Amino acid sequence: MRLYGPILEPLAKVEHRLNQELQSPYESLIPVLRHGTQLGGKRLRPAMLLLAGAAVAELTDEHVVLGTVIEMVHTATLIHDDVLDEADTRRHVPTINARWNEHTSILLGDYLFAQSFRLAATLPSTQACRWIGEASRLVCEGELRQVLQRDVIEIDEETYFDMIRGKTAELCRAACQLGAKFSGGNDASVDALGTYGNAVGIAFQIADDYLDLWGEDDTIGKTLGTDIAQGKMTLPIIRLMETASNSNRAGIVRILRGPAGERLERIRPFLEQSDARQYTRCIAERYRRSAIDALAGVRDSAAKVSLAAIADFSVDRRF
Amino acid sequence: MRLYGPILEPLAKVEHRLNQELQSPYESLIPVLRHGTQLGGKRLRPAMLLLAGAAVAELTDEHVVLGTVIEMVHTATLIHDDVLDEADTRRHVPTINARWNEHTSILLGDYLFAQSFRLAATLPSTQACRWIGEASRLVCEGELRQVLQRDVIEIDEETYFDMIRGKTAELCRAACQLGAKFSGGNDASVDALGTYGNAVGIAFQIADDYLDLWGEDDTIGKTLGTDIAQGKMTLPIIRLMETASNSNRAGIVRILRGPAGERLERIRPFLEQSDARQYTRCIAERYRRSAIDALAGVRDSAAKVSLAAIADFSVDRRF
Repeated sequence: MRLYGPILEPLAKVEHRLNQELQSPYESLIPVLRHGTQLGGKRLRPAMLLLAGAAVAELTDEHVVLGTVIEMVHTATLIHDDVLDEADTRRHVPTINARWNEHTSILLGDYLFAQSFRLAATLPSTQACRWIGEASRLVCEGELRQVLQRDVIEIDEETYFDMIRGKTAELCRAACQLGAKFSGGNDASVDALGTYGNAVGIAFQIADDYLDLWGEDDTIGKTLGTDIAQGKMTLPIIRLMETASNSNRAGIVRILRGPAGERLERIRPFLEQSDARQYTRCIAERYRRSAIDALAGVRDSAAKVSLAAIADFSVDRRF
Repeated sequence: MRLYGPILEPLAKVEHRLNQELQSPYESLIPVLRHGTQLGGKRLRPAMLLLAGAAVAELTDEHVVLGTVIEMVHTATLIHDDVLDEADTRRHVPTINARWNEHTSILLGDYLFAQSFRLAATLPSTQACRWIGEASRLVCEGELRQVLQRDVIEIDEETYFDMIRGKTAELCRAACQLGAKFSGGNDASVDALGTYGNAVGIAFQIADDYLDLWGEDDTIGKTLGTDIAQGKMTLPIIRLMETASNSNRAGIVRILRGPAGERLERIRPFLEQSDARQYTRCIAERYRRSAIDALAGVRDSAAKVSLAAIADFSVDRRF
């Protein structure tokens, strides 16, 4: 993948290590673990970790370990998300719950969490364990808040951003900070790359919200309107609610509380009359810009060019 | 509790720390986190950790941190177990899935895992992270194997012991090893107390199997026969299958594959004709004995007396 040009070799090592770490002496576990490694897809977080490291200085074997750790944590959250969302496929691959069952998903996610921490603890200091532990905690906190708020329609933008910061951005921030730190980056560059990671994570999540309403099913690999069907408030819907007239708002609330399968179709006309689509693109663009700005103090390199390209990709992608 | 006499004060500190660690600035999370801390019950693992430490030398603040960590990991696994078992109550307290829903259970368990690792990483070395990460991995591996083997009736004793070693014993082993190690114990005493913890964990699990068939519902706080209703092979049932005549075995298999709610009642006569009950007690007793034997090289102390009392309790309890 062109985006990852400067780190193709270490990224291949992460892939190799991931496969190694998910071996098992127990035959019954092998197909489940192997399937788990195939759900991750874009390997965005290890790529950001490696690029952040390469943007500061040389990459080391520790970066490969950390990239593997961060992808395992991410995969664990995906597998549990697929249970929460009752999803049957993820990027055209059957989910663990579809191919086995929910119980297997829960325990495989737990297994990956535990294994990732075990691997992080093989590094010489507790630095990685602390950052990864804290980032994972914030991810779970964000997701837990989202589940407890499900079907709560009165969510404002502040609460929304607070939740997605936890849910999506923290792991991207931790990935970039770890990459920079383990290349010997000083506090300023660790912070700058952390800010970059956080902004890219948020831009990515907003683009996800956008694609759930205006993407192409075939390309994104899931059914449109899944978020509103599940009672998740996304940025376009929050904007729609905030800008609707009182009478329209009552109608929108009825739709959002109505049959899950009809919500997308019925809310479409309201969405198209509002500025929700353009507003969402505009906010995503603002975070893309912040991500690029955060790179200003980082020395020029092929890795930095790739980091900027990932920020662009986060909002311009179609999947 | 008399068993925990020599460590009542540090155990109260663990309880306090546990409550502290499960605070949140988000109001929606507070009742869920508070409810989570109430599910643990006996606090057996932190007690074993503290007693193992006290049996070797002085306890430190680090023992309190470690006790909190190990109880959080244990609570996380309980909360996920309640989803797997579709349990409504645990020791007369409603489960998270009963009071909220399965999604909340999954994410709260994840939150506790992450938080426990974050806390373990505040200690000066990676020692605790490594042992706790590895023990958690083995717990998940054991549980995952059990789920993948559910409704597989042809399980031998070797496979059974292998699974429960992971599922139940590893965390008890890690608790005792950590307690001893953080009191400055040498390799011999860390190993001896680890062996003790492992044996107590296995004895505890066998007693659980026993109580599921011959306990009193009111005292154990769950319905009898839950294990066979869920297609879990326990030691008494494995023994029954191994010793049954060919014609009886066919009948037993039919019962175990038949309606879940009828299994206990229909298998009772076969169980009472066999030596399964006595055999199960005898094997539990063997592990109790191993646990006591492992303490031989540990200097005499009030803590050691309590460790022996816990080994006795593990098989003689009624709940």
